[in-house]
Amino acid sequence: MKKMLFYHAGCPVCRQAEDQITQMFDSSRFDLEMVHLGTDRSRIVEAEQLGVASVPALVVNNQVLHINFGAALSELK
Amino acid sequence: MKKMLFYHAGCPVCRQAEDQITQMFDSSRFDLEMVHLGTDRSRIVEAEQLGVASVPALVVNNQVLHINFGAALSELK
Repeated sequence: MKKMLFYHAGCPVCRQAEDQITQMFDSSRFDLEMVHLGTDRSRIVEAEQLGVASVPALVVNNQVLHINFGAALSELK
Repeated sequence: MKKMLFYHAGCPVCRQAEDQITQMFDSSRFDLEMVHLGTDRSRIVEAEQLGVASVPALVVNNQVLHINFGAALSELK
């Protein structure tokens, strides 16, 4: 199983993207972890190191897909 | 099979997003159509009507996910 990380902040834009991603990803091949950076601030640094600049963002194979635009990471600090 | 539409313009940002989406989507449940708006300009209006504002963008269940940012749709006209 490959790991996918979905970083969000609970915002409406994030939730809509989350719904879409949850529907479409192949759960037989990927393990999807949802990370709420608003409540789990200790993981903001990890997200930054992966290249996440805004949420919602999806990280697959260490590559970041920034989806729509909810909030800049700097606003969550 | 549900239909997913991936609108792109062949740009590097589009290609990277395309690779990621192609890897992660569940092909047993979704039928993914790639639409190159740079070469298939007749479909720009269709993309606009679905709510696509920039490419690359993925449309699932009539909802648009704008992924990263390659080019505004207006630049493709």
